[in-house]
Formats: sequence, structure tokens, C-alpha cells
Amino acid sequence: MEESAFKYPSESLVIINELVLPNDTNYFGNLMGGRLMYWMDIASGIASAKHSNSKGMTVSVDNLSFKNPIRLGNNVHIEAKVTRAFRSSMEIYLKVWEEDLLNQKQNETNEAYFTFVALDENRRPKSVPRIVPQTEEELLQYEGALQRRQLRLVQAGKLNIEDAQELMTLFDSYRKR
Amino acid sequence: MEESAFKYPSESLVIINELVLPNDTNYFGNLMGGRLMYWMDIASGIASAKHSNSKGMTVSVDNLSFKNPIRLGNNVHIEAKVTRAFRSSMEIYLKVWEEDLLNQKQNETNEAYFTFVALDENRRPKSVPRIVPQTEEELLQYEGALQRRQLRLVQAGKLNIEDAQELMTLFDSYRKR
Amino acid sequence: MEESAFKYPSESLVIINELVLPNDTNYFGNLMGGRLMYWMDIASGIASAKHSNSKGMTVSVDNLSFKNPIRLGNNVHIEAKVTRAFRSSMEIYLKVWEEDLLNQKQNETNEAYFTFVALDENRRPKSVPRIVPQTEEELLQYEGALQRRQLRLVQAGKLNIEDAQELMTLFDSYRKR
Amino acid sequence: MEESAFKYPSESLVIINELVLPNDTNYFGNLMGGRLMYWMDIASGIASAKHSNSKGMTVSVDNLSFKNPIRLGNNVHIEAKVTRAFRSSMEIYLKVWEEDLLNQKQNETNEAYFTFVALDENRRPKSVPRIVPQTEEELLQYEGALQRRQLRLVQAGKLNIEDAQELMTLFDSYRKR
Amino acid sequence: MEESAFKYPSESLVIINELVLPNDTNYFGNLMGGRLMYWMDIASGIASAKHSNSKGMTVSVDNLSFKNPIRLGNNVHIEAKVTRAFRSSMEIYLKVWEEDLLNQKQNETNEAYFTFVALDENRRPKSVPRIVPQTEEELLQYEGALQRRQLRLVQAGKLNIEDAQELMTLFDSYRKR
Amino acid sequence: MEESAFKYPSESLVIINELVLPNDTNYFGNLMGGRLMYWMDIASGIASAKHSNSKGMTVSVDNLSFKNPIRLGNNVHIEAKVTRAFRSSMEIYLKVWEEDLLNQKQNETNEAYFTFVALDENRRPKSVPRIVPQTEEELLQYEGALQRRQLRLVQAGKLNIEDAQELMTLFDSYRKR
Repeated sequence: MEESAFKYPSESLVIINELVLPNDTNYFGNLMGGRLMYWMDIASGIASAKHSNSKGMTVSVDNLSFKNPIRLGNNVHIEAKVTRAFRSSMEIYLKVWEEDLLNQKQNETNEAYFTFVALDENRRPKSVPRIVPQTEEELLQYEGALQRRQLRLVQAGKLNIEDAQELMTLFDSYRKR
Repeated sequence: MEESAFKYPSESLVIINELVLPNDTNYFGNLMGGRLMYWMDIASGIASAKHSNSKGMTVSVDNLSFKNPIRLGNNVHIEAKVTRAFRSSMEIYLKVWEEDLLNQKQNETNEAYFTFVALDENRRPKSVPRIVPQTEEELLQYEGALQRRQLRLVQAGKLNIEDAQELMTLFDSYRKR
Repeated sequence: MEESAFKYPSESLVIINELVLPNDTNYFGNLMGGRLMYWMDIASGIASAKHSNSKGMTVSVDNLSFKNPIRLGNNVHIEAKVTRAFRSSMEIYLKVWEEDLLNQKQNETNEAYFTFVALDENRRPKSVPRIVPQTEEELLQYEGALQRRQLRLVQAGKLNIEDAQELMTLFDSYRKR
Repeated sequence: MEESAFKYPSESLVIINELVLPNDTNYFGNLMGGRLMYWMDIASGIASAKHSNSKGMTVSVDNLSFKNPIRLGNNVHIEAKVTRAFRSSMEIYLKVWEEDLLNQKQNETNEAYFTFVALDENRRPKSVPRIVPQTEEELLQYEGALQRRQLRLVQAGKLNIEDAQELMTLFDSYRKR
Repeated sequence: MEESAFKYPSESLVIINELVLPNDTNYFGNLMGGRLMYWMDIASGIASAKHSNSKGMTVSVDNLSFKNPIRLGNNVHIEAKVTRAFRSSMEIYLKVWEEDLLNQKQNETNEAYFTFVALDENRRPKSVPRIVPQTEEELLQYEGALQRRQLRLVQAGKLNIEDAQELMTLFDSYRKR
Repeated sequence: MEESAFKYPSESLVIINELVLPNDTNYFGNLMGGRLMYWMDIASGIASAKHSNSKGMTVSVDNLSFKNPIRLGNNVHIEAKVTRAFRSSMEIYLKVWEEDLLNQKQNETNEAYFTFVALDENRRPKSVPRIVPQTEEELLQYEGALQRRQLRLVQAGKLNIEDAQELMTLFDSYRKR
């Protein structure tokens, strides 16, 4: 069976909701960062499997910051979808909200980019469908993915910064903020 | 009781060993990235508490990549220590090895930087002792911490890249690799 | 702050995705029924809290059958929403799919009705907004809720079957199948 | 080795005691319904395996209600035994008590009927020994099992209510309460 | 409310059944010793609470050996009851069987003695009822408890071996085996 | 590849740090004894694997007492190393501290001896390298191991107390305390 040559980001959308239980919390009764990253990794794994029709594993996690603590008893709402696919790897964008169920408030707490690689049954990288962005936001994510990938390669020492054209554009964008 | 004005990095060193059990693994029998990040967060939390004599919470995790998969039944060895302290936040450097117990081999699998903030009992940021590096490696980590901090701030949109002197040095170092 | 007198079913919609890990499975490598019910209960709890702006607890679970086994490594997709609210209790309808990520197939595996009661801070039942169904399916669920409630009351010995008008209609529907 | 053609209900009796720990509890410090169902499913699985000398899986759970909340730190006492066996399926009756260890009080909190099917190594239904009830209570459970089975089949749309002779008797019993 | 001055061992009997799941097992698919000790500790805690009408904590565990491995998918059956009470502490005797459900075989795998102390709400030791043994086996356990207690005290350096009259009897019993 | 005929105790040293989370604690907010034994068993398993280059399983745990409770939110620090190896079994010495991170205090809470046996891939006992103690403390542990082994064998009814020469020396040491 031939696989589709491309997919839309929305085809890989995964929504996860988790209740913050006592063992997920730190000394202050807030969700531990590590527990949230565990859930984000699960969500990324499902999203990348939906895009690639294959299992995979985590390659990297981009710089990620924790803006607001999430309280015991509240709901963690995570949305993940693939922004761009390379040969066998995929970048997944995640957004996390805390839902205070009593007051019906949603606070955005995190954004993150995870990278997964698709593997075949022999654990070898396997090519994946291209992404065709549909919405304006998806297009921005798609274009930014190249810059972020170069930053990862530069940080990993695998790419000379002068060859990272797209990354230069990113730095320019920082300058203009 | 007055707290010490500074501490050495070695005073916050934390060593964690965890056996990879079935529920920690993905479809391929390898440790899930999210589970490893959970353990790294616990290690960072203990290291930062040792430095600050206080509990804290995760502020951010720097770009982190997973080089080699860690197999079911092997041992995960994590070392964490504080590289530098700012007013109330601390950068923690982590190094992770897989130990193949049958063949007595150690593979380095990850390096990471976590940032924690120390909180007092009212959950308000609390000042922490300075770090005085002792070894050459600690000194390099200490100096690099400033660059990494600026990169976090620039990426979070809280610092203009032109004001990030140390970061420019980082970019230069990328150029020279 | 006055609460809204009614809500739509869609306002309580909760989506949960869980990866089936080794410890969730039985001797045959299939998801244990009890583990699925645990996740369904969490989903119901979040849905009822979204509708009622309050925490609550499980009152009852209707007869529930397991059609198809869910395999290790696959994704469990659960959707839950409130079908009808009574004074302080709410009926939640859940639908469960197994997603075979490798073959991109979705199998429906379960349907269920959970009932939750909303509690105030003193653990006393608290009145909740009415439900106003919007779609045809929501209307059918809304109407059926009365019958199902009478069946629960009859089965609990709290209602005489001859007083259960709506239930009689249910039995008639069985006759006509 | 030939297996016995019948067994007594007492041969499948399983007793489970579980301490309610923090992570088992909801916002109010009471045992979550889903966690209790998880334990009931485990108990049913062991009881059905004792009767059938084989592993199996959950087929269905009858309507089940939660009468009294079970508190953090208390003991959950579950008893399960097979009431009747059909070709390859078995109905298991469960009774649940909360034990308040400090005051030595036992409160009955749940009754339930689970149905399991016995499977052979190839995951195919396997015939199981008949049940021979010994006590009066076991006889009542044995006879009621037929009615409950018909109700399950009718609710699943697999049996016309007019062909459900035993179920009619059940409805009559409701009328007379 | 005055508490009873004594109780029978049977009043504290606790039965626990646990299914061995993947995460409970070691590299060879056998139950990990530490997981079994965890369950034994829970059983001891419930037994001692039943005897003392109070919560308590683990004081010590006697020398304990693991005779036969317990396999994944089998049932662990634990029975625990108080053998003798001292001022505020209680000795609990535990016996553990593996149940091979497919072949209906029971193998005894462990015996153990745990000691718990009863605590009041202020975490201070609290006096507990005496034990009155009823069966011959309970009487033997009751008498042996004194010797085992002296061995614990000698091993902890809290009792001179020459003052341990009962322990000498124990050593004699070893000589006669 | 020939394995070394001996190893030093320090080659098997394992350090574990675990944060005490809500689900690890009993009614009084202290670490449950069973949970600590679980972690000690994991540490022993890693230490014995480091010494033997093979997986193994728990054979026995010597009498072990819990001196000081460990509080929720504190750190448990465990050190384990092999004291002596017999044909295929190894004695592991463990020491446990509670670290009160806020006050930077360390309390010793437990000492213990675990025995593990090394197994080959067919689950058969496998010979292990000898131990050569290096420090004075290691030498004392090494010599004491023989006595403790005899006590285990006598308690298990596998050795006549009169043939236990080393054990007699142990009893003498008790007399002189």
C-alpha cells in the first residue's frame, strides 16, 4: 500500500487532558516540570505517529520555559501537531493550558517544540510524508521550522553558523522585536 | 541563622541511578524521552535545593537532544550540579549515561541545562548564595551560564539581542568551530 | 458572580488520548478493562467539572461492554460530554476508540454513561446548570437520559417500575429493534 | 489432563485489600471511582482465572453505583467470586467495603457484576467448568445470573426483549418491590 | 470509649492478592523482591491497624529470604496477622504464596516477621491490646515472638546477649534441628 | 572475553537519590517502609550487577530496622556496595540517609544487608568475581559477611549452629558490647 506523499498538520493533531494528582506535584502543590514534559513527550509521540504511520522516538526538545505554575486538582490541556517534516524527522509544536475548572479559566502555561524521528520495525529511520500547511498560523510554523532546525544543528555543533541562512533571519527577527 | 554568601558547585552534586523498567519504555523497548526528562527534573530539583536550602520550581529547560537510546533493563546514571546562581534562580548542568550492566559499558546519552527558581514558604522568589567555581570545567560552565541565560531571555522576548553582549560571544564561538 | 442557568453539551467536551503502556495490559498484551474505566472516570470527572464549575464525584456507571481489545502500543482516544443535568447530578456520555497508529485505523471499542454529582466545598450536593442540546444527536442523548436515569433508580430499588414512564418507552424501543 | 466439569463458587473466591493512598483520591480526599473499578477488575480477573484455569479478559460491567465515599488512609476490602459460568464466559459478583481502621467500622460501599471470558493461548474463547452453587445465597446469585445476562444482551441489542423470559421475571420482581 | 484489653490474632488477619504486572518484574520476568516487600509492608500496616485501632509505622523487618521466584502474570497471595503485642509495638507474621492460575498450583515463597508501632494523632507511641492466641500455631508464634524480639534487640545493640534468656532457647532450638 | 577474577567493593558502589512524593507516604506523611525497601532492592540489584556483569535476583534481606521517619518532600540518599562475593551470590551493604534539604541536615536512617544471586541467560546461578577489600571499613564488612552468611543459613535451617564457627564469634562480639 503506497502512503500519501503529504499530509496536513491537522491530521496529526492530538489533544490530551490530564488531571493533576498528588503524586504529580512538588512541595508547593504545583505540577512538577518533569511530569509535564513526560505528558508532552507522550503527546508528541502520538502526533508524530499519526503523521508518519509509524512509531518513533524523541530526538530533541527545544528550549522550553514554564510560565505559570499548574495547581493540584486542575486540568492540564495539551495540544500537539506536526509543523514540518524533514526526511525522517518531524517537528511537533505543543501548546499547554491549565484549566481551573472551578473558575472556568484557561491559562496558557507552555509552548514547546519536540522533534521525533520515525523508525521502521528494524529501528532504522524511515522517510515520512511532507507537510502542507493550510492555515496562516501553520504556514508561519512551517517556515519557522527551518530556522529552529538550524539552531538545533548549530547548537549541536553539526552546522556552521555562517551556513545557517534561515537562522540569520531568526536573529534578525530578534533584533526587530 | 545567616546563610553562607556563596557555595561551591560540588556542594550541590546529585547522583541518581534508575533502572529502566517496562513501563518506562516505548514501542521499541527504549527509554521514553519524557521519562528521562522526569528524572532529570527530579535531579535538578534536588541539586537546586542543596544549593539554596529551599524548595523551588522548574523555570526552563534548554535545548536538549537524545543521542543514544537507553535499553530496557539497563541503568540510567544522572549527575546534576549547579553551574551558576543568579538572584533567585540557578542553572543546573546535567549529564546522563546509560550503563549496560552486562557488558560494563557506559554511553553518554544526554547533556542538559535546567533552570530552577528558589521559593520561600509563601512561594515568592528568594535570594540564593553565589557560586564560586573550583575546577576548570566548573569555571567554563560558570562563564557559559551567562551566555545561555541571555539566549533564554532573547528567545523569551525579554531581552533585545543587541543588548546581549555575552550571547554575541557565543555566536562568535559557533562561527569559529 | 451569578452562574449561567444553562450550558451546551459541547461546552463540557473533553478529549483524552492515552498510550497503552506495558503496565496497562493483561496477560494477552491487551489493555485491561479496569485501566480503561480509570481513564473514563477521569474524563467524566473533567467533563462534569466543566459543566458545573465545581468538583464532584462518581455516582454510577451504566452497564458497559468491551467490544474489541485494545493492543499494547496503540492509542486510546476518549471523548466525553454531558448529555443532561438534573438537580445536582449530570449524565456523561463517553465514546472510546482504539487508534492503530501504524495502520491509521480507528476502531470504536466502548460507549458508556457515567453519572457524577457536583459538590460544594463542604462536600454537599450543589445545583448545576441545565443542558440545552444543540445537535440532533445531543437531543437524542438528552431525551434518552431520562429513561436511563429511571432504569438506574429502578435497579437501585428507589423507583417503582410502574412509575417509570420513560423507562417503559425504552422497553418498547427494545421490542421494536 | 482432563479438567473438572464443575466447580463451586467458593473455589474462585478472591479477597483483596488495598490502602487508599494520596494518588488514589480526588479533590475531596475520597477514593476515585475509576481507581476502585481498576481494583474490582483485577479481583474479577483473578476470580475468573481461578474458576477457569485460564487467563481471560473483561467482557462487561453491569450498572454499578457508588453509595458511600471511601476516605484517604482507609482500607478497601473487596471480595469477588464466580456466580455462574456460561460456555466460555463467567459472571463474577463483587462486594466492596470501606474499613475505617481507627474506628473499626466496615461500610458496604459497592456491589457489582463483572463478566469475563476465558481465552486459550491463541486468544480464542475456551470452555469453562459449570458452577454448582452450594449456599442459598450462591443459589440466588446463580439464578439471577440468567436474568442479568439477558438484560446485557437486550441492552447490547443482541436479544429481543420478548425472547428474554428470565428478564421478564426480573421486571416483575421490580414491580413487587 | 474504652478499648478492649485484648484481641485474638484472627481479628487482625489480612488477605491481599496482587497480580504481577510487567512493571513489577525484573530482567528475568520475575517479581522483584522490593515490590513484594512493598506489598508485605502494606499488609502488615493493615493488620497492625486492625489490632490496634490506630495507624502506625514500620519498626523492623526480620531476616527474610526469597525461596521461589514469582512469575509475571501470576497471583501473589499474602496473609498477615499479629502474633504478639508488646507495649505499643506488634509483631506481624506474613506468609506469601505464588498462585499459578493456569495450573492451579500454589507455591509458598516467603515467610516474614514485620514489627509495627502504633502511633496516636501526635505521632507518639500508643499502647495496644494484648494478644490471646487461640490455635496451637498461634500459640507457637506467640511464644516465639519473645525470642525474635530479643534477637532484634541484641542485633540492634540494645540488649546484652546474656540477658536474652529467650534467645538462648532459640539458639538451643537451632542446635537440635 | 575472560572476566576479572576479582573486583574492589568500590567498583560496585551505587548512589541513589529519591524525592519522597505523596504516594510514598503513610498516614503520618512519612515514607512507608515498604517503599524504602523497594528502592533499596533496586540499588542492591544495580550494585550486584556491577560486580558480576550479570543480572540477578534477591535472595535474602537481613534483619533491618527503621530508626528515624523520613518526611514527605525530603530526599532519600542510598549508597550500596558489594561487601563479599561467594560462589554465585553477593552480599550488598546499604546505608540510607534522609536529607532535609531546607535545613541541610543528613540523618542516617537505615543500614541493611541484601543478598543477590547472579544468573546467566538461562536463569541459572553463575559464578562471580571475588571481592578484594581496600579500606579498613571494607575489610570489616568483608570479614563480617561470613558470620552474617552463617546466621542466614542457621536461620534457614540449612546449617547446624555448632558448625557455624564464624557465627560463634559474632555471638561473642554481642557479649562484649
